[in-house]
Amino acid sequence: MTDVNAIFFLSDFGQRDEFVGVVHAVLHKMNPKISVIDLTHEVPAFAISVGAGILERSVDYLGPGVVLAVVDPGVGTSRRPIAIEIETEHGPRFFVGPDNGLLVGAAERRGDIVAVFQLDSSVDVGAVTFDGRDRFAPAASYLASGHDPRERFCECDPSTLVRLPVHLSDASALGQGTSATLIVTSIDAYGNCALDRPGAALPRLGQVLSVKTERVQTQAAVVKAFGDLEPLGLGMLVDSSGHVALVVNTGSAKDLLSVERGDSVLISG
Amino acid sequence: MTDVNAIFFLSDFGQRDEFVGVVHAVLHKMNPKISVIDLTHEVPAFAISVGAGILERSVDYLGPGVVLAVVDPGVGTSRRPIAIEIETEHGPRFFVGPDNGLLVGAAERRGDIVAVFQLDSSVDVGAVTFDGRDRFAPAASYLASGHDPRERFCECDPSTLVRLPVHLSDASALGQGTSATLIVTSIDAYGNCALDRPGAALPRLGQVLSVKTERVQTQAAVVKAFGDLEPLGLGMLVDSSGHVALVVNTGSAKDLLSVERGDSVLISG
Amino acid sequence: MTDVNAIFFLSDFGQRDEFVGVVHAVLHKMNPKISVIDLTHEVPAFAISVGAGILERSVDYLGPGVVLAVVDPGVGTSRRPIAIEIETEHGPRFFVGPDNGLLVGAAERRGDIVAVFQLDSSVDVGAVTFDGRDRFAPAASYLASGHDPRERFCECDPSTLVRLPVHLSDASALGQGTSATLIVTSIDAYGNCALDRPGAALPRLGQVLSVKTERVQTQAAVVKAFGDLEPLGLGMLVDSSGHVALVVNTGSAKDLLSVERGDSVLISG
Repeated sequence: MTDVNAIFFLSDFGQRDEFVGVVHAVLHKMNPKISVIDLTHEVPAFAISVGAGILERSVDYLGPGVVLAVVDPGVGTSRRPIAIEIETEHGPRFFVGPDNGLLVGAAERRGDIVAVFQLDSSVDVGAVTFDGRDRFAPAASYLASGHDPRERFCECDPSTLVRLPVHLSDASALGQGTSATLIVTSIDAYGNCALDRPGAALPRLGQVLSVKTERVQTQAAVVKAFGDLEPLGLGMLVDSSGHVALVVNTGSAKDLLSVERGDSVLISG
Repeated sequence: MTDVNAIFFLSDFGQRDEFVGVVHAVLHKMNPKISVIDLTHEVPAFAISVGAGILERSVDYLGPGVVLAVVDPGVGTSRRPIAIEIETEHGPRFFVGPDNGLLVGAAERRGDIVAVFQLDSSVDVGAVTFDGRDRFAPAASYLASGHDPRERFCECDPSTLVRLPVHLSDASALGQGTSATLIVTSIDAYGNCALDRPGAALPRLGQVLSVKTERVQTQAAVVKAFGDLEPLGLGMLVDSSGHVALVVNTGSAKDLLSVERGDSVLISG
Repeated sequence: MTDVNAIFFLSDFGQRDEFVGVVHAVLHKMNPKISVIDLTHEVPAFAISVGAGILERSVDYLGPGVVLAVVDPGVGTSRRPIAIEIETEHGPRFFVGPDNGLLVGAAERRGDIVAVFQLDSSVDVGAVTFDGRDRFAPAASYLASGHDPRERFCECDPSTLVRLPVHLSDASALGQGTSATLIVTSIDAYGNCALDRPGAALPRLGQVLSVKTERVQTQAAVVKAFGDLEPLGLGMLVDSSGHVALVVNTGSAKDLLSVERGDSVLISG
């Protein structure tokens, strides 16, 4: 193993409590040479699809290492703790977390799934465990340290992986004469609203679309960059993650449209 | 010293400002080889007992290193800046921060207190200082770097340590025919409400308790795991930190019970 | 290069999304030996002057390394991406970010500007880019790794740097018989309100000032430390960053005065 190994850590733990810090402490104790990079811990509680979307958007930028992701409404039930192994152009990569659809989209975006391992349940001593700390973090550290998963975990059939019902890969184009209901999958600190369509679905530049949310009806111009909009003007563009987004130049599309993550937006060409 | 030394950093500084970052910068400047692991910086301002509770719940998971904790309503007064030295099965450990009860519970949970040092006040140049940056961080770095505290600090009598009035170590069992008023000591991002009783106080599994808060009266089943509850059902269990907690399966006990940290809950068997 | 190089990272990205984490991942991938220290990512969106103020207050505490700062309402427009080189007593330092006034105040506080470089625009492939990830982070890593900026970037005239209209360096003294309108430039987690005056402007100790905000009129005593105030008493002092601040002993000046960042406060001697 080289010395550049890292663990990329995402969760819905929030930052108010010690949970994220304790997982960091456990990872440091197990192998202080591994860098731990936080993707975010502000995934809304139990929102698997939001966490999955963030992983999909991030995965292309991650170097060698292990993804450790915990958004786990099924903790304490029979849902499986797993590690997914993929083959990439730079060698194997692992994704560690619950088998609930959180990991599989990002894993498949980054490479071909070659194996799935069920993490041992030796820590399950009958009480409520903190699986992030007691099960997923040790497995991530084990894999990031270069150990062979086959020496410790049992393989299971990749076809049994739990998948999310909806995928962000629907590339149906929007455009003139059509209408579609899209979902706001993420809102950044500026109020830019990413929608559940890849950039390939962006209508023709210059087109003006009708945008309708539960409380607001207005229009948006299809543009290439923020600077193509008037100040406070609403537009649609391909965001830096490659998704279609509604944005306001130096303003907040979230506020203008009065939407939250998960809300629907009706777009008509 | 080995190369695995770390500083575990907790405060009530919040993340909105540069305070946490500046302390990290100072620690890195003094010794870039020491890893700094944030436990949390979202302790409510001046809430010593909340910070103390977080340290107590975290301390078992921390590897070799120094705990640096700053929740310090007495900054600028005569409260003492201190370092507590404990003896553990793996050697000495240090806890650095204000002498206001923040550190002592976690220190005693982890080992035997063998010495208390008063940090020098040479930085007290007459203006308001940022003790986290100017006094506690340098002391933590000094100790984490393996230097001898006796060469720089004066020892003081451990019996003079300031202690919090209430301790989380009351193990009186709850149960049938009894009732007790418990305090919500922490609420995590999911709305799970930890109470000020250790897990040993948990009533018999399967028992149904009456739960009364200022605004809500309802019932909770004593269970072993989230999965033993109906969706949105209220339960009482031992949480992953070993405390009794009120929880809702895939929901928020905080919202259901309409409680905040510090609120009382009357439990009747 | 020594092994103590660091990148000090400030932005208005917030922590809810993956942006900060992805920049960390990119920096780690480019050079895993460089420590990345977050100053804060909670600068209000697009608030260049708030970000500039935080950098000015922090810069004295940063060791060797590169400041990477992104508060960038002009992203996607013709505003220049730049690196400012300063000469300090410990050698050159670099500040990387947009040319919009964010960097220059902190750079000049820390040393003499010796060169300004325009970062190449080779990543500008016509779509919306995430400049923090695609342009500023790579440049910061390049410089923190010890490479020569002259081999890769074009120099531009330092006199063309964009500057903020207002500076925090007005040292006019407040005091008896005078009155002045000050701006709340930052509010920390405790509610302490830093004002846009350096500590040198603090009136005589013991003086009682009239303090008037939009909703509140009251009085504040000029003191040296929190401990000189009655509990919940309002005071004015020099804060740990060297600025004049309004504070409440074990309370919140923000709440008492009902102010937010950016609000005006009329002080009369």
